[in-house]
Parts: sequence; C-alpha cells; structure tokens
Amino acid sequence: MKKKDISSEKTIHEKYMNEAYKEGLKAYGKLETPVGAVIVFNGKIIARGHNTREQKQDPTLHAEIIAIKKAAKKLGSWRLIDCDLYVTLEPCPMCAGALIQSRIRNLYYGAKDPKAGAVGSVLDILAIEKFNHKVNVYSGIMENKCSDILKNFFRELRKSKGNNSNNV
Amino acid sequence: MKKKDISSEKTIHEKYMNEAYKEGLKAYGKLETPVGAVIVFNGKIIARGHNTREQKQDPTLHAEIIAIKKAAKKLGSWRLIDCDLYVTLEPCPMCAGALIQSRIRNLYYGAKDPKAGAVGSVLDILAIEKFNHKVNVYSGIMENKCSDILKNFFRELRKSKGNNSNNV
Repeated sequence: MKKKDISSEKTIHEKYMNEAYKEGLKAYGKLETPVGAVIVFNGKIIARGHNTREQKQDPTLHAEIIAIKKAAKKLGSWRLIDCDLYVTLEPCPMCAGALIQSRIRNLYYGAKDPKAGAVGSVLDILAIEKFNHKVNVYSGIMENKCSDILKNFFRELRKSKGNNSNNV
Repeated sequence: MKKKDISSEKTIHEKYMNEAYKEGLKAYGKLETPVGAVIVFNGKIIARGHNTREQKQDPTLHAEIIAIKKAAKKLGSWRLIDCDLYVTLEPCPMCAGALIQSRIRNLYYGAKDPKAGAVGSVLDILAIEKFNHKVNVYSGIMENKCSDILKNFFRELRKSKGNNSNNV
C-alpha cells in the first residue's frame, strides 16, 4: 500500500491520538510509564490500552499489546486488517513485531523513543522488506504533548524515589 | 554476561528442548503452527507454552509470549531474571522483543526461521548493543527435529487445504 500524505487530515489523527493520550494519563495515575494506544476500525475506536506492566507484573502488557488483544477479541479475528493503531510513544521491538503479527494497516505514533524505539530510532522493524506484512508508519502526531507526559512522569519519579526503577 | 561454550551441557539443553518440542506437538494437534516453549528457573520448568493463535484468534499468542506471561505470574514479577527460555523455532520480532522486555537470561532455540526470524535470520534484535538488556543466544539445539515438525505440518496443511492460510 502506498504511504499517503496525511497533512490535510491532521485534525482526525490528532483526535484519535488525543484518545491514546487519555489512555496514557490513566497509566500515569497508576504510576505506570504513561503510554496509551487506541485502535480505529471503520472510523470508530474499537480498542483502547495503556501500559499496566507494573500493576499486573506482566512484561508483555504494553499499551499496544493490550489494544491489539482487545481489538482481536472484538473482531473475532487475529487479523486486524483495515485497523489503524495510534500510540503516544514509538513502539519497542515487541510491539512493532505485534503490529506485523496482527496485520495492522497504519501506525500513527507521537513521541520518538531514542533508547528503545523500533520504528525509526534504534532500528526500523517495519521498514524491513522481507516480512510478510507492511505497516504504513506516520510519526510525530502530537509529538510534544506525548513526549512531555513522559518527561514529567520520569521527573516526578526521580524526585519521589531518588532513582528510576520504572525504566521503559 | 559472557556467552559460554555449552557443548559439554548438551544433554541438559536437549532435555529442556524436548519439553518445548512436546509443547509444539500440542499445537500440531490443534492445527496450530507447531512451535513450543518452556522457561527454566533454578533447574526447574516453571512455565510452558505453545502457539494458540488460531484457536484463540489472538495474534500475540505465540509459544514464547504465553510462556513468558505464565512465568511472570508464577514468580510474581515481570522481571524474569535468571530464567532461560527454550523454544523450538527462532523467535519473531515480537517474541525477541518480549525476551528483552522480560529480562530473560538465556535463549536456546531449535530451528532457524529464514522468513521471519529476528534472532539471526532476517535481523538480529538481541545483538543490538543499545537495548538495556542482553540475552545470551544459543541456537541449533535439536535443530533437525524442531525443523522437521514444521515441515511436516505445512506439508500436511497444503495437502488438506490446497493452500496455506496458516502462515507463521
């Protein structure tokens, strides 16, 4: 699928990213690294997720994985064809891989993750030609807002704990 | 951590890989791509998993992810420190990423996956220096047996269906 220019559709993408951001706020309230995601199908949000790794003590429970599992349950299929995922932070390798596994159509992400991002920062899993599914990637949607929530979270965490045990 | 020579410990690794293989057989019986995994902690198998993507219609339910989730539940922690994962097939990007996320110590895998393997075949996620956790990788444990079960599965699937809708 050809990647299109989405500049004229800015408002709609910001609307969905804002919903992902609200999910991130829920994680923040639980002292989880504040990352949120939503999945959109036919113009409707069909799944939401926010990071609950600490709360559930499960290393796989990133926002994207939770949203993907919920969307698959809702659609009754592991193939999330024609589904778009919005997430506040650049996916890690696990989540980028889950986007391929679930056949997500478009990925829209907010802030970059220079330390662990697998969609352009540390590596670019979704640009590898050999995989059997291609996800279109659009980055920088509400980038500052999505980045600020993480910065604030880690600043507060360092203040309250003296160190950071909650590394992404 | 320095990667060690495991040739003198062949028997013990084959023992655990054989348990992963038995998990793969369970998947085979359910018409799932036959991949199995076990996680070992202090010399004991604490978690088992086999691919149930089709049965559960969940794209994240690869053998490794299931075993990681179970091990985290058993230990009451998302940090699977000092845990070793045995899996019959080279992990995909999602599962390789989950090994980093869960802080798995050693990965032992059987067959290579030239089409989607992320631990040496298509890419090598676990060799990237920048990530905050290093997993030691040992490949080729019971390679032929682990490869043959997959070959047989896809051969039978093609025979029975005339095509292969169950792509890894």
